[in-house]
Amino acid sequence: MTVRIALDAMGGDQGPEVLVAGAVQAVNARDDLEVTLLGDEEVLHAYLRAQSSPNQDRLHIVHTTQVVGMDESPFEAVRKKKDSSVAVAFKLHKQGEVEAVVSAGNSGATMAAAIRTLGRLKKISRPGIAGIFPTLKGPLVMMDVGANVDCRPQHLFQFGIMAAAFSQVLFANQRPRIGLLSIGEEGGKGNILVKKSHELFSKSSLNYKGNVEGRDIFHGDVDVIVCDGFVGNVCLKLSEGLAEAVLSMLREEISKDFKAKVGYVLARDAFGRFRKRVDYAEYGGAPLLGLNGTGIVCHGRSNATAIKNAINVAAELVCENVNDHILRLLDEVEPVLVAAAAGEETS
Amino acid sequence: MTVRIALDAMGGDQGPEVLVAGAVQAVNARDDLEVTLLGDEEVLHAYLRAQSSPNQDRLHIVHTTQVVGMDESPFEAVRKKKDSSVAVAFKLHKQGEVEAVVSAGNSGATMAAAIRTLGRLKKISRPGIAGIFPTLKGPLVMMDVGANVDCRPQHLFQFGIMAAAFSQVLFANQRPRIGLLSIGEEGGKGNILVKKSHELFSKSSLNYKGNVEGRDIFHGDVDVIVCDGFVGNVCLKLSEGLAEAVLSMLREEISKDFKAKVGYVLARDAFGRFRKRVDYAEYGGAPLLGLNGTGIVCHGRSNATAIKNAINVAAELVCENVNDHILRLLDEVEPVLVAAAAGEETS
Repeated sequence: MTVRIALDAMGGDQGPEVLVAGAVQAVNARDDLEVTLLGDEEVLHAYLRAQSSPNQDRLHIVHTTQVVGMDESPFEAVRKKKDSSVAVAFKLHKQGEVEAVVSAGNSGATMAAAIRTLGRLKKISRPGIAGIFPTLKGPLVMMDVGANVDCRPQHLFQFGIMAAAFSQVLFANQRPRIGLLSIGEEGGKGNILVKKSHELFSKSSLNYKGNVEGRDIFHGDVDVIVCDGFVGNVCLKLSEGLAEAVLSMLREEISKDFKAKVGYVLARDAFGRFRKRVDYAEYGGAPLLGLNGTGIVCHGRSNATAIKNAINVAAELVCENVNDHILRLLDEVEPVLVAAAAGEETS
Repeated sequence: MTVRIALDAMGGDQGPEVLVAGAVQAVNARDDLEVTLLGDEEVLHAYLRAQSSPNQDRLHIVHTTQVVGMDESPFEAVRKKKDSSVAVAFKLHKQGEVEAVVSAGNSGATMAAAIRTLGRLKKISRPGIAGIFPTLKGPLVMMDVGANVDCRPQHLFQFGIMAAAFSQVLFANQRPRIGLLSIGEEGGKGNILVKKSHELFSKSSLNYKGNVEGRDIFHGDVDVIVCDGFVGNVCLKLSEGLAEAVLSMLREEISKDFKAKVGYVLARDAFGRFRKRVDYAEYGGAPLLGLNGTGIVCHGRSNATAIKNAINVAAELVCENVNDHILRLLDEVEPVLVAAAAGEETS
C-alpha cells in the first residue's frame, strides 16, 4: 500500500527549502511513500530540481497562492485564506487525495484548518496535540500540549485514551502506563480538574498508574502523561527552554577555564550523542489526535530531518490505523464515560 | 537589632543533624541572628554539642514532643499535633518570641500551621509560595508554586504584588518586571484565568511586561512570573527533574567513551560551578508570602547550606519589612482590585 502525505511546504520559520529537503529525505527513506508539496509551484520546483532525488516520481506539487503567517490569528486566517497551503492540504485530505497532512506552519491555523475541514473522530469531544518527550528510559507521550486550554475531566480522560492508542501504535507499548500530571502522588491531590479526572481514570479499565509529578516526567516510568493543554504547553516550552539554558550555562562555565575547554573538546562526541537524545527533531512532530483523519504539527524551527521524521510518523499512524485503535479503546471504556456524562447532567 | 528565627528542627528528609548544622552556620555567618531550634531537646542538645559553635549563646532549644511526618495529611496533623515542632514554632512567632519560622518539614502542614496561627496579611486573599529560579541572567521569583491550586484572577494579581515586593527586598529590583505565565505572548492568549488576570495587570501601575511562555522562564528577562499554584508547582518540579535528567543523560553518554571520561575530569570544575548556579540550596527556601508574619518553606532534601541560606532569607525579609512593602504596593494598586471585585459581584 502506498501512503500519500500532503506537506504544507510554505509553513515554518526556515522557509520552503528545508521543507522540500525533508520531503525528499522522506521518500528516499520509505518506498511506500508519496508526498504532495503545497505552495508556490515555481519556488518548489526550483528547490526540487536542486535536490535531484532519484524518487522524483513520488514527489508532487500542488500550486497554492496564499500563505498563513506564523503570527496570524488562526481562525481568521483559515476563514479568509481559502487557497493557503495549509487549507488546501487538508482539503486534499478530505477529498481522499492524501491520507495525512504535515505542517510546520502556524500551529493554531493548522489545528483550525484540520478540525474545520476533517471534523472530529466519532465520540471525541476535543482533538488534542500529543507531544513526545525524551526521558531517561524511552519516549513519553504527553497530551494535550496546547490545543485545549480550558478542559473538563472527560476531555482529559479522552486525551488519555488517544495518547495510549498513539503510544501503542508508535512505540509498540501493548498496555501503555498512563499517569495524570498533578502536584502530589496521592489521588486526592491536585486541582479540581485533576481530582475529577483521577476518579474517571481510576474507574476505567485503562492501565492507569495514578498521579505523576513534574519531576517524574523524565524518569520514564509511565508511557503517557495526561494534562490540560495549558499546563502541557507550559511544560513543553519550559522543557525546551530549560534544556537550552542548561547547555548554555554549562558552555559559559566551560569557557571560563582552559582545562575545561580542552575537556569539552574530548567529550564533544558525548555531548553530541546527548543532544541527539533530547533533540525534538528525533520525532519531528506532534500529532493532532482525535481528528477524522491524520494531521501532524511540527515545530516552526523544524529542520529537514525533523520534517522527514514527522512525515514518517504520519505514515506510521496511517499504516497502523491509529484512529481505529482510538475507537476500539473508546468502546472499551465507554461505560465510565457514559456514567460521567450522566453525573455531569445531574450535578 | 537582633532577628530571632524559629527553626523546625525535626522536619525534612535528612533528620535533625543537618538542620542543627544549618542553624550553627547561620548564626556563625550573621551577628544579628538568634535561632531557636524546636524538637526533641536531648537529640538537639547532642547535635549542638557535637557542632561546638562559638556562638552557642545565640542558639536556643525549645522542647517539643510531636513530629509531623512528611506524608501526613497537613490539616489533620496541624489540628491534632498541638505540640509538634512546626506548630510550636508558629506559636512562638504569634507570641512575639521570634520574628520568623523556617521549616523543611511537610510543606502542607507548614502552610496550614502558618495560616492558622498567624493569619493572613490585611487585604491578602490567599497567601502563596514564592519560588526562586536560577536563570541565564539572575534569580527569578515565581509565585505561586504550590499553595493554591484553584485560583481566581484577583489571587494571581495579588501574587504579582507580593512577589514584586519580595523581589524588591531580596534582589534590590526597584521596579520588578512582572510576567504572566501563558502559552502565547499576546495578551489574548491563555486560559480563562490568565486572560482575566492579564486585564487586571494591564490596568495596574505595576511594571507589567505581559505574557511570558515556558521557554522564557530561564531567559531572565522578567524578575517575577505569576501563575496559579498548580502550574507553578508543576514547573518547579519539572525544572528540578529535568535538570537532574539532563545531567544524568550527559553522565551516561560521557561514561560510554574513554576520551569523554578524560574530558569530564578536565571540565569537572566547570561542572561544579554550573551545579552551584542551578543549586536550589543557593537560596535555601521559598517564603510563604501574604502571612501576618514570616514563614519559609524549605525543600525536604535541604542540606545544611540550604537551611543556613533559608534562615538568612528569613532574616532579610524581617529586616527589610517585606510585609510593609506588600501593603504599600497593595495600596497603590487598590483601585484596580476594587473595580475587579465590583465586576465579580455584578457578573
